[in-house]
Amino acid sequence: MGQSKVNGTNGHHTVNGVNGIDGQHDEDYSSILTRSRPQESYYFTAIEPNSFYGKLRDLYANKVLKTQLEQLKKQGSYDAFSLNWHPAYDIRRLYGGKTRTDGIPPSLFWESDVGKWIEGACYFLSSPDAKQFSHASEFDSAIQELVDMIEKAQQPDGYLNIYFTVVDKEGRFKNLRDLHEMYNAGHLLEAALAHHQYTGSRQFLDVMIRNVDCFINHFGPDQSQLHGYPGHPEFELAILRLYNFTKDQKHFNFAKYLLEARGVTRDDQDGETFFVWEAKQRNDPVLPPTMDTLDDVWYHQAHKPIHEQEDVLGHSVRAFYLLTAAADLGGSFLNDAKRLWTDAVDNKMYATGGFGTEPRFEGFSPLPHHLPQSTGEGGCYAETCASIAVMMTSERILSHQLDGKVRDILELCLLNNVLGGGNLEGNQFSYANKQASWGDEGEIRHDWFEVCCCPPNTSRTLGMLGGYAWTANVEEDKRQINLDIYILLSATRDIPLPNGQIARVKMETEMPWSGKSTWKLDAPEGWTWNVRLPKPDYAENVQISTNIIESDPGFLSVALDHSSTLSQSFDMPVRLLAPHLSTGQDTLTVSRGPIVYTAEAYDNAEIENQHEHFEGVGITSNTAFKENHQVIHGIPVITLHCEQAAFVLNRTELNEPYRSVNQDKPARSWKKLDKGLRFVPWFARANRGGKGHLRTAFLRADEALYQNN
Amino acid sequence: MGQSKVNGTNGHHTVNGVNGIDGQHDEDYSSILTRSRPQESYYFTAIEPNSFYGKLRDLYANKVLKTQLEQLKKQGSYDAFSLNWHPAYDIRRLYGGKTRTDGIPPSLFWESDVGKWIEGACYFLSSPDAKQFSHASEFDSAIQELVDMIEKAQQPDGYLNIYFTVVDKEGRFKNLRDLHEMYNAGHLLEAALAHHQYTGSRQFLDVMIRNVDCFINHFGPDQSQLHGYPGHPEFELAILRLYNFTKDQKHFNFAKYLLEARGVTRDDQDGETFFVWEAKQRNDPVLPPTMDTLDDVWYHQAHKPIHEQEDVLGHSVRAFYLLTAAADLGGSFLNDAKRLWTDAVDNKMYATGGFGTEPRFEGFSPLPHHLPQSTGEGGCYAETCASIAVMMTSERILSHQLDGKVRDILELCLLNNVLGGGNLEGNQFSYANKQASWGDEGEIRHDWFEVCCCPPNTSRTLGMLGGYAWTANVEEDKRQINLDIYILLSATRDIPLPNGQIARVKMETEMPWSGKSTWKLDAPEGWTWNVRLPKPDYAENVQISTNIIESDPGFLSVALDHSSTLSQSFDMPVRLLAPHLSTGQDTLTVSRGPIVYTAEAYDNAEIENQHEHFEGVGITSNTAFKENHQVIHGIPVITLHCEQAAFVLNRTELNEPYRSVNQDKPARSWKKLDKGLRFVPWFARANRGGKGHLRTAFLRADEALYQNN
Repeated sequence: MGQSKVNGTNGHHTVNGVNGIDGQHDEDYSSILTRSRPQESYYFTAIEPNSFYGKLRDLYANKVLKTQLEQLKKQGSYDAFSLNWHPAYDIRRLYGGKTRTDGIPPSLFWESDVGKWIEGACYFLSSPDAKQFSHASEFDSAIQELVDMIEKAQQPDGYLNIYFTVVDKEGRFKNLRDLHEMYNAGHLLEAALAHHQYTGSRQFLDVMIRNVDCFINHFGPDQSQLHGYPGHPEFELAILRLYNFTKDQKHFNFAKYLLEARGVTRDDQDGETFFVWEAKQRNDPVLPPTMDTLDDVWYHQAHKPIHEQEDVLGHSVRAFYLLTAAADLGGSFLNDAKRLWTDAVDNKMYATGGFGTEPRFEGFSPLPHHLPQSTGEGGCYAETCASIAVMMTSERILSHQLDGKVRDILELCLLNNVLGGGNLEGNQFSYANKQASWGDEGEIRHDWFEVCCCPPNTSRTLGMLGGYAWTANVEEDKRQINLDIYILLSATRDIPLPNGQIARVKMETEMPWSGKSTWKLDAPEGWTWNVRLPKPDYAENVQISTNIIESDPGFLSVALDHSSTLSQSFDMPVRLLAPHLSTGQDTLTVSRGPIVYTAEAYDNAEIENQHEHFEGVGITSNTAFKENHQVIHGIPVITLHCEQAAFVLNRTELNEPYRSVNQDKPARSWKKLDKGLRFVPWFARANRGGKGHLRTAFLRADEALYQNN
Repeated sequence: MGQSKVNGTNGHHTVNGVNGIDGQHDEDYSSILTRSRPQESYYFTAIEPNSFYGKLRDLYANKVLKTQLEQLKKQGSYDAFSLNWHPAYDIRRLYGGKTRTDGIPPSLFWESDVGKWIEGACYFLSSPDAKQFSHASEFDSAIQELVDMIEKAQQPDGYLNIYFTVVDKEGRFKNLRDLHEMYNAGHLLEAALAHHQYTGSRQFLDVMIRNVDCFINHFGPDQSQLHGYPGHPEFELAILRLYNFTKDQKHFNFAKYLLEARGVTRDDQDGETFFVWEAKQRNDPVLPPTMDTLDDVWYHQAHKPIHEQEDVLGHSVRAFYLLTAAADLGGSFLNDAKRLWTDAVDNKMYATGGFGTEPRFEGFSPLPHHLPQSTGEGGCYAETCASIAVMMTSERILSHQLDGKVRDILELCLLNNVLGGGNLEGNQFSYANKQASWGDEGEIRHDWFEVCCCPPNTSRTLGMLGGYAWTANVEEDKRQINLDIYILLSATRDIPLPNGQIARVKMETEMPWSGKSTWKLDAPEGWTWNVRLPKPDYAENVQISTNIIESDPGFLSVALDHSSTLSQSFDMPVRLLAPHLSTGQDTLTVSRGPIVYTAEAYDNAEIENQHEHFEGVGITSNTAFKENHQVIHGIPVITLHCEQAAFVLNRTELNEPYRSVNQDKPARSWKKLDKGLRFVPWFARANRGGKGHLRTAFLRADEALYQNN
């Protein structure tokens, strides 16, 4: 584990201000300026319109963004930047009334909702495939109108926050733990960077740089500054992106300060960490429901310095926004990101790439392998944003060093829990993504949410999708183009070379449905290609058309001439995934390549009518599946049908609180399901009506093979 | 479901004060004065010293009570009645500091700890078998010293509470929800009743009757009164016991008011329930961690009127103290008690008769069949007091009408989770009783607890044990003695008849280890016996020496002459208990008759060393057991050894977060445990040293029967 650089007195961990940062000579953070970033590299990627991902891009650009714009206008967040009063602000009714249990008004998140929409729209509009998007001019106008309002909403000192300008002027900078000022600023800053990339204008970006200056004026390591950091991380990663653009050391220092100050006690904060000190300044006796005492800030990942955090804890989205910045910064913080990423992925991840067991606080269970599948089993949350945040962290880790496991998780999250966060008609969304329904809780989708972070977050992720697919680094001295493939998708990418030359790569693939891919590589003479291709854990019988020169874990490296073709193929048989013993679950989850499957009532009405939520239904380890090509709302998918090996337990005998097992007959008797069991990709669930009854992990019914059926 | 008698306006549920009580002509509560009660009937029961229960009584009378007296003196609660300051009071440090998360000082429970000790000691000292108890005179002196202090601690207006006399004089009667004034008074009142029975003196009882008057002066249904009731029920059941003694209608009315007022909104409380109204009066913004909003009082069973509560919710001990009073009162409240008892027993009970899944609030999971076995599985609490409270409720329900299921649960709780709340050396105790250990959490016992409700609660339960065994009602007109047996134990009971005559019954049994019992019944000529014997659900091949005249569910009725003998026998083969399907647990728990077994590291060191906490260990449905007679700290027990049918999963293959099941080999492979697996009775666990590693429910390993071992 990395060790925090501490330089303090009285046993407190203290950061030594700017000196401390300058003093860490052994940490090399320089790659932050050279690594490829998805938020920039999407810009060179034209996704093939008729491909799987192309159709999804079409859905998001032509339907989802439009839906979301309308919802933001309806919600009030669009107009909120005009700084007029809005009825939605009137929710300071924690005491005695019914409101969100954390007492946080939803309007406190409005900048982030709008920011992510702007960011996503700018990515789509500035992509090489933008011309096919029908609402381009409407989106362009909305963006400009919003940016104009945002500019006017900024206060003379650079401060920019609607709630603390309109509703609670005294509240500014008093509660970083709960009230999201830095979080909102982070999202607006990311939007401003995307806006600059789209328009070339610095209008929005300069607003946000002034806003960052306002924060820097108030917060930092010096005695004259408050030593705060965000209760909901995000600002850190946005500032690092800003630094990548501005190359201004002030921005680097501030982002690094935000990461270093977290969870650190300081003598000039009465030996407390910032959130404790800050709460005592407020003299506010109300603690959020996640906190038992003032220093109980594991939910905010501020219970310890990041270097000392061994377990990923608390709110899942906060955790991974923080780790995204840590991974991006690099050095010892990259170790922190890897360590906590590994804890999450190995011990706290659902099969669908979902994270977070506890709806009560949208976060991780502290217990490894405690992964209840539904409310009835004791929890399950798997917020869409959390999986997006894991994609972001994974991409940052990969950009330092290839690792097939990290790539696999990036792809798993994208194709399952992230993509599954919106329906395939482009007008409804999910926030929590439970693995199974329960009681009256159907896994249905919703038009919008009171706090609506996930839908525009998915849009911006799809907006920069090309950037997640690959990175290209040009080594001029070697006249070599290094191309690393993260996600197999059909697209063409231009790679600018020195002297205005262009290299071009065209990737064609049948993924995620079949493992056949080809690359056409075209560079000027004298240049060579060094390509690293994924070798996913789910792939069998991997074939490649050229010699492999070396392997990173889970990747294959090939060296190719300036103009070459390359092809790869692998098999993706259906795999049945069994969870860790300590989950207490003896179940099988159906997957095929990177796609995880679920069974829902729509395809299995007769079974589900009799066995609500598929309780007691199982499949055997030797299940064979029939594959069917289907199109759901225009998106091609492969569905699966287990015809012979689906069973259900005799429920009557298992309905006793405790029954004595009779030694003369099997403890559990299984009955074959005549029609078998049908599965759809997890991301395509809840798209065809119904009550949203579904299950993803089925009992392992191997016992049925030994019984007479 | 019973329907609340409501008589209100504005749609509120309002109780109509004394008129409302008088107006309920259709409710018959008269049996409260005639039913046999364990707190009285123990007085006639001499438990055979050399029997199983006799040895336990010896342990409690000669060791446990002594240990507890010493601990109460050490803790400060003994001397607290002198009304001097004690350092333990200084815990008003909720804000910003580390303290109990509910902000309740442990000293707020001191009256209850001491009250239960006095009560238990009085039961032992006044039992027919008291002469064998070695510390009788020391206990007698301590009781008298305490009673003298308590008398002096009472305020001129009858108020009696140490904390609100010494520490927080302004706090009196301001927070019934959290601060336990009524709860403490209830325990002192029960102690006073026991003291009167032991000594014949009214000194303590009159103090407590004046204290009850003080409460009645302040609380009740009239406009001039506060309409409060306890946040921690107990007072209700104590007042009903008082009424049974005093026959004073005022006491009946007050107890009934406390039950009726609960969860009821009233116009003169601004249309709120009492706890909401009261909190608004305090203007106290701090909510306990179980509450999201002020009206969120499910934890206190005050979210609805009792008649409208469909699910047993909240703190398990509170719930069952409340239901004990409801069952005792009878009428429609008996229906409430039965309904909520059934929800608890059918849906929320551990195999050991433990209740409460959630350590966070010592209570029930709201989810039926959500019964994690350990912290690692997401919870488990099973507080000793909760099972005692279920015994109390069960006894009250039985006293209205025999029901074998209720009897079985009463016995299950007693012999497992209650008896298991103390070690067999008499000097250590458990509070939570988890079904399995996990991580660094061993199921070890402790000398004492900061809040120490359970140890003296167990003492008073063992103190009145004879009263739980049977009830005797004399029908003078028929010259018939009705004897109902609840618990099979070896004891002699005198039954006073009119004209000073005595009937006597001597019960001899080998229970809980063997199902052979005999009764010698001896009454004057002209009297007959109507005996109802338990026919437990676990009993097989039940034989009885005379004709059965009729059967209540789970009971056998026989009619016998004035002087008769009767014998019964049944088999108690080892039973393997499988839990409800919806627990998600495919496990087997070993039981034999009423005794539930557990496997602990002490007897299985080699296995547990390799498979910590016995994770991955299973037994098959056809397991045969070898029985061994052992003595643990003087208590005879039967231990079990599964020699042939214990297996363990190959852990390596199940340590992957998600592994793809290979169709060519079994999904889970089992290895036979060479030395088998040894079990001890649950109550006798954690008595022989070690780290307290144990497991109670084992994986069902039937699959191993089909694999080559």
